[in-house]
Amino acid sequence: MIKDLTSLGLKVRNGCVSILDQELLPHQEVWIDVTSPEMMASCIKRLKVRGAPLIGVAAGLSLAQYAKSSSVGADELIRAAKLLREARPTAVNLMAAVDRIVLNHPSADLTASAIIKRAVEFFEEDVRLCEDIGNEGAQYLQDGDGVLTHCNAGGLATAGIGTAIGVIRRAFELKKKIHVYVDETRPLLQGARLTAWELEKLKIPYTLICDNMAGFLMKQGKINRIVVGADRIARNGDFANKVGTYSLAVLAHHHKIPLYVAAPPTTVDESCPSGEHIPIEERGAEEVRREFSPVTARVFNPAFDVTPRKLVAEYIGCRPGF
Amino acid sequence: MIKDLTSLGLKVRNGCVSILDQELLPHQEVWIDVTSPEMMASCIKRLKVRGAPLIGVAAGLSLAQYAKSSSVGADELIRAAKLLREARPTAVNLMAAVDRIVLNHPSADLTASAIIKRAVEFFEEDVRLCEDIGNEGAQYLQDGDGVLTHCNAGGLATAGIGTAIGVIRRAFELKKKIHVYVDETRPLLQGARLTAWELEKLKIPYTLICDNMAGFLMKQGKINRIVVGADRIARNGDFANKVGTYSLAVLAHHHKIPLYVAAPPTTVDESCPSGEHIPIEERGAEEVRREFSPVTARVFNPAFDVTPRKLVAEYIGCRPGF
Repeated sequence: MIKDLTSLGLKVRNGCVSILDQELLPHQEVWIDVTSPEMMASCIKRLKVRGAPLIGVAAGLSLAQYAKSSSVGADELIRAAKLLREARPTAVNLMAAVDRIVLNHPSADLTASAIIKRAVEFFEEDVRLCEDIGNEGAQYLQDGDGVLTHCNAGGLATAGIGTAIGVIRRAFELKKKIHVYVDETRPLLQGARLTAWELEKLKIPYTLICDNMAGFLMKQGKINRIVVGADRIARNGDFANKVGTYSLAVLAHHHKIPLYVAAPPTTVDESCPSGEHIPIEERGAEEVRREFSPVTARVFNPAFDVTPRKLVAEYIGCRPGF
Repeated sequence: MIKDLTSLGLKVRNGCVSILDQELLPHQEVWIDVTSPEMMASCIKRLKVRGAPLIGVAAGLSLAQYAKSSSVGADELIRAAKLLREARPTAVNLMAAVDRIVLNHPSADLTASAIIKRAVEFFEEDVRLCEDIGNEGAQYLQDGDGVLTHCNAGGLATAGIGTAIGVIRRAFELKKKIHVYVDETRPLLQGARLTAWELEKLKIPYTLICDNMAGFLMKQGKINRIVVGADRIARNGDFANKVGTYSLAVLAHHHKIPLYVAAPPTTVDESCPSGEHIPIEERGAEEVRREFSPVTARVFNPAFDVTPRKLVAEYIGCRPGF
């Protein structure tokens, strides 16, 4: 049986994997028992569980549960692994997790106990990597800093304290006087809904803004640092992250504000030479239109964009091989 | 009696001033009879009637109706004029209109007929100025251009065909093959709700995007031009416009994309030496939070930002005196 595990958005109890439904946050905290790889793939697609590191961890534990609870053969496991691997195309952690836990191994190594061991290791490794990121990154934040973050790269996006938010949290715990600016992050509002919720829990002072206000705040000198996560980092250091990150990076460059990318080594895709090779997921028009705009409005809805290496001040937690 | 007048968002019928409630667009088209200056000031504050040129026109007609329908003395007219003048602080057209129609005149010139004459002239002048802007600006758009606009600077924002949208509309009527990218424009979604609605009516092809996607589209070469309106242009050419415009201007500069500012001369504030002297309206937190984020979230919600003159390729319709 998988041992009990707990993170902010994922837990294992008595061998059962559950996720905190991130679609419903911050107003409802509903845990969902995810009983099959198909169900987990669906939860990943719908962003009920999200965040590049966490979807890798969640996919791994779902495969472990599947291997243990059903009398499945290697073929079925591999099929389930491939299904999960393709749930979302941009975050490489998902693929790295599925490969490390299932697909890179010969059938003889696809026993339930071996898969459980590797999935739990992957979870626990992510917790440690977040700690490392927090400890390494806190040095970059100083008393008086206004720190902008985009989307949610926190405890809800990882098995641990988060990547970008891990940095902020550790600096806060070190009593550094910082103020966080949270981009609401349209269209799915991970900043307004999830990062704000996390910062409330952590009692870290923050101000919520619309994405289009960040430039004005930089010009006013209220933002001194930007810390973001990443969904995939190419070998040359270009990285994909939630759409809007590229605009922030250009704005930061213009205002001479350092942009830090906080991500574990599992986010680096050594097989990807540069940003132009990162597949960018496009999502449905209704996420943007909602009830607001004409129902016939044509929409472009890329979930991510790519920021070139030259706009990055430092990588925290990983060292792309450029 | 005020003669009948018609624009997309404002009309006069039998001496009665009505506005199309822009809070309810695009799904409901509800006209409101605005029966007093107090009611007009409230509609302006709530953005039921909005757009820098249009709120000036609407304030003028409201004062004309007030002068005609009630037996008001000069003191009451001046009080009503001052109330309207202060309804919103950033768009200078509102102040210019109220001054030109009422406050710049001695009491002897505040007869109903004189005020009606000046208010109707102000309306008709705005229609002509929009035509001029469209004709002057269309030259800048070429076949194959992707043209980004922000907020709504269209027929709903003026008495005529609009400023930025006037340019786009005239280029489209000249059979130029252009595609419009519409920033949704958080927090009040004037792009998603109003510009999209106008472009649907005009059958001009467009794609709706979130504000944070514009940079990525510029990088991909899909956006070649940016046309925006303005709420106030300082003497040196710095201008205030809907928040997010400054970020677009920096992004445009980085990508060597020209940014055009389309505005009538009434938007230039000769008494304002530079952008730092333009008052920026801050609005309530609930516009950003809505139902999404923690109800205790602290919010910064400036309605406008200021873009420096050096990031502007051309002014269309006005010539700041730098």
